[in-house]
Amino acid sequence: MSDPRNATGAVNLDEKLATFSECWSPRVVARMNDVEFKLVKMHGDFVWHSHADTDEVFLVVKGEMEIGFRDRNVLLREGEMFVIPRGVEHITRAREECHALIVEPRDVVNTGDAGGELTARNDVWV
Amino acid sequence: MSDPRNATGAVNLDEKLATFSECWSPRVVARMNDVEFKLVKMHGDFVWHSHADTDEVFLVVKGEMEIGFRDRNVLLREGEMFVIPRGVEHITRAREECHALIVEPRDVVNTGDAGGELTARNDVWV
Repeated sequence: MSDPRNATGAVNLDEKLATFSECWSPRVVARMNDVEFKLVKMHGDFVWHSHADTDEVFLVVKGEMEIGFRDRNVLLREGEMFVIPRGVEHITRAREECHALIVEPRDVVNTGDAGGELTARNDVWV
Repeated sequence: MSDPRNATGAVNLDEKLATFSECWSPRVVARMNDVEFKLVKMHGDFVWHSHADTDEVFLVVKGEMEIGFRDRNVLLREGEMFVIPRGVEHITRAREECHALIVEPRDVVNTGDAGGELTARNDVWV
């Protein structure tokens, strides 16, 4: 079932981004089947981690970010997206604050197998 | 598995949109698990239809579109998204050409239960 919070109207990404300021703390804005769309603000370095069971998508809404892999880095600018394959260790980084839309199954933990203090609560909607 | 075409670098939505001109003919640009990300150009009215087994997401990249339901219309502007619930009859419309990112399971047929001449081939990548 779709979440009823999806049912009333358009989800404006800029308006949703204006409702929070914390970095590395994804906010859910929509759900399609079991897939969630989460806005995240990033600044600095996240933690190295992987997700054993799922791919993960980042679509940059504002600014620039880097997805680091052990053998290369992928730069993402506004209007660019990337699919991080399941099981592949990665880190997200942003020299200046960057805003992105994450698309992934609803139960994915942001720090994957790494855990730690940057682990965010899931299913926090804005 | 992720499609290998995802693996090489960032997917730039504007660059992908520049590779085709046909309306109502979605092009796949990425795959996350069994979910595909498809760019579509729209102008005019599509056909009334529904998808019995899945929700469907539209995220407007350029222009404006309307998602019509039997009891209301939802206007989507650039940077806005909407989740069409499974099983709900709808039609997409655009007075001027509009570009959107569709997110849905990979085997979804664009015309759903309606079929007809606007039915597009699936899994066409750009």
